[in-house]
Amino acid sequence: MPQLILLRHGESSWNRSNLFTGWTDVDLTDTGRQQAIDAAAVLASEALVPDLCFTSVQIRAIRTLWIILDEMNLAWLPVVREWRLNERHYGALQGFDKGAMAELAGHRQVHAWRRSWDVRPPLLDPEDPRFPGHDPRYAEVPRNRLPRGESLEDTVARMKPAWEGPVMQALKKGRTPLVSAHGNSIRGMVKMLDAIPDDVIAHVEIPVGVPLVYDLDDALRPRSSRYIGQPPDEVELPYDIARRMEAAD
Amino acid sequence: MPQLILLRHGESSWNRSNLFTGWTDVDLTDTGRQQAIDAAAVLASEALVPDLCFTSVQIRAIRTLWIILDEMNLAWLPVVREWRLNERHYGALQGFDKGAMAELAGHRQVHAWRRSWDVRPPLLDPEDPRFPGHDPRYAEVPRNRLPRGESLEDTVARMKPAWEGPVMQALKKGRTPLVSAHGNSIRGMVKMLDAIPDDVIAHVEIPVGVPLVYDLDDALRPRSSRYIGQPPDEVELPYDIARRMEAAD
Repeated sequence: MPQLILLRHGESSWNRSNLFTGWTDVDLTDTGRQQAIDAAAVLASEALVPDLCFTSVQIRAIRTLWIILDEMNLAWLPVVREWRLNERHYGALQGFDKGAMAELAGHRQVHAWRRSWDVRPPLLDPEDPRFPGHDPRYAEVPRNRLPRGESLEDTVARMKPAWEGPVMQALKKGRTPLVSAHGNSIRGMVKMLDAIPDDVIAHVEIPVGVPLVYDLDDALRPRSSRYIGQPPDEVELPYDIARRMEAAD
Repeated sequence: MPQLILLRHGESSWNRSNLFTGWTDVDLTDTGRQQAIDAAAVLASEALVPDLCFTSVQIRAIRTLWIILDEMNLAWLPVVREWRLNERHYGALQGFDKGAMAELAGHRQVHAWRRSWDVRPPLLDPEDPRFPGHDPRYAEVPRNRLPRGESLEDTVARMKPAWEGPVMQALKKGRTPLVSAHGNSIRGMVKMLDAIPDDVIAHVEIPVGVPLVYDLDDALRPRSSRYIGQPPDEVELPYDIARRMEAAD
């Protein structure tokens, strides 16, 4: 039975300071590092041992993965770095305080940016240093593929080839991939796995540093999913959130 | 002009305690970690920035690479893990003290094991827990390819496809690969680059934690080579060692 382990990186310094982060390459806090250590411990205690890893090209996801591989004595595992697994690009909002932006643009606007399916943030000018075309890590990505700001819909469309390509190929070969990624790129995977509607997915919260495990059937449809470790009892599964919200409609 | 950066991992705990290590997966000492930090600093100060990395599947080489990537803000670089870049397998000698073994088997025998081209150590029984067939990291390597003990000649033959395949391909594409590996797998690369004779290569000492940089021509022949950082002035280049020993013959 194929298994998939999804993991949102541990707490980053900008998670803590409540800034729009997106593709800004901020690192883990000490709390975030400890969350990665804890995630490794619960994976080991549940005998959930990945044999192939995927990560975005952002340091908070890579470091989360490094810590887990180190703690589990799995540093030798193949690791595929994939820019398509990056966080949603927050355009010109990146670096701004979420609270200050609410005062500036209004709570309703900030809510639309954060919790809608297809509302884009203000887009970056390509001359802006925050545009990914200035970063050598994206040198091999065609410039017209690089985001100037993304809606959640854009993010899901961008990460979908990474999911349908290498991750699904690995699952079909019987591998157990660990995907270290971000709130919105994991939303994309969860949306496809659990068939979550467009208007619901932005409301599915993915906790930082808590492994989300899917048991799949041979057609790679979920048979069950669960969070492991802290705080799995306090977190509602994506599937359950979606079904509850659909029922409330 | 293609550039290649070779790096023997920093000091390991068994380097320090003078044990035959081989494929035993020992980690870096604090000194070894500091050597990796220093290597990153000299690479940065010389503007030697790799854009693709290779490493063995042994933690001392992987951690050396992790530290360098972290220090240089290059964690996003592609990393290829390749078992063929592992250290020479020291067979049944692994885990034994080099001094005690000299008393047991004689200095001449230990010298032959350590400094000859084609003398193998005592081979492991496949039932021995030190045989790599028991280690999940080699699960996808055909069992008859896994060493029970290697001469330097065996090690060079084993690592040669990794050198001629992915590393040379990367150089031909104009990449600047960083190869984090081991004394004997680096001897193999250096032997091929500098055309070092069989009877000389075992006497070429590769210092731990000091980047060895080759400037290559378009046919990937060395134009020059140099160690950077400490202690480059105290270390003779492989090319110079070989030419000196040939002249002394």
